[in-house]
Amino acid sequence: MAEPIEFYFDFSSPYAYLGSEMIDDLAAKYDRKVQWRPIMLGATFQKTGLPLLVTIPLKGEYSLRDFSRSARYYGITFKFPTKFPLSTQTAARAYYWLHGQDCAKAREFAHAVFRAYWVNDRDIADLAVVQEIAAGLGIGKDDLAEAVAKPEIKERLKAETDGAIAKGMFGAPYFVVDGEPFWGADRLPQIEKWLQTGGF
Amino acid sequence: MAEPIEFYFDFSSPYAYLGSEMIDDLAAKYDRKVQWRPIMLGATFQKTGLPLLVTIPLKGEYSLRDFSRSARYYGITFKFPTKFPLSTQTAARAYYWLHGQDCAKAREFAHAVFRAYWVNDRDIADLAVVQEIAAGLGIGKDDLAEAVAKPEIKERLKAETDGAIAKGMFGAPYFVVDGEPFWGADRLPQIEKWLQTGGF
Repeated sequence: MAEPIEFYFDFSSPYAYLGSEMIDDLAAKYDRKVQWRPIMLGATFQKTGLPLLVTIPLKGEYSLRDFSRSARYYGITFKFPTKFPLSTQTAARAYYWLHGQDCAKAREFAHAVFRAYWVNDRDIADLAVVQEIAAGLGIGKDDLAEAVAKPEIKERLKAETDGAIAKGMFGAPYFVVDGEPFWGADRLPQIEKWLQTGGF
Repeated sequence: MAEPIEFYFDFSSPYAYLGSEMIDDLAAKYDRKVQWRPIMLGATFQKTGLPLLVTIPLKGEYSLRDFSRSARYYGITFKFPTKFPLSTQTAARAYYWLHGQDCAKAREFAHAVFRAYWVNDRDIADLAVVQEIAAGLGIGKDDLAEAVAKPEIKERLKAETDGAIAKGMFGAPYFVVDGEPFWGADRLPQIEKWLQTGGF
């Protein structure tokens, strides 16, 4: 069986959100699974020395226009949130905790977090909001609060972030297909050709 | 008649080269002309404060891989040049001089300059190389050398660069379609949808 596609992202990345709405269907078309791996994008900024995209003169203004236009192009509901950027570590830790118990539930949770932020303007940095999202999927609020405070879950997120950077990640979404890295939701057509042809 | 598509670029940009091989055909499909406008990309770096892409940790290494892979994806011949980056002001000035006399010849010259650099590894910063490229199109070497030294041609390139930045340009290729800006060869599918639908 072919290796799964690795999908590294931060819940606070608009292009990662767009990618999250498309990658599973694309992979399924070619009988591939996808490993979703939230990481802390801030750690990549420290490596690259790059500023936050939206703060860059000229490029920042363009990016805001491109986020929305790209969403319309793909037919994905999108609304730039009131609070941006924000910390996604609670949501990411909750994801890894859930993933240890139920992969499918973790995937549902990740979609719900992305949509809460990029469609419904929820403050996903807030533990109470993350708990509420989880509760909607039948996950206990107290269990979640306890889990995200555990040292092993904190370590897991740190290790995943380090692992993504070791694979060359510098921005989100970052996909790895059979060892080949692809950055950006706009590289999905190249990923599709890669899956079709086995590499080009 | 619909407005032409504006295509701002620097001959030293690999993604601009990829765009240059595709934009005219795309525009023609929708009965549009394209205005080609070489500018000095260095001036945009001063505005954005961004470093040269290939020098950025992690992102730079990825970009070198992405240039070649994107070229293969599009089916465009591409070879990363020995000398990179380099100054393209002589070639850009020669373009505007030619454009003042013969638009079609200027377009041919621009293609020839892009291909000399991105296919044949020629040093297009060298006046002698630019003269040779022009000579292949029947343009006098001495006429070109004289033209690119003229103050009005130097001013023209400066004005075009300032004009591009005034339209929000921060990287190449930068296309403007009926007032809507698109950055990157990878936005050609969005440009196509824009041309098809009149905006989305």
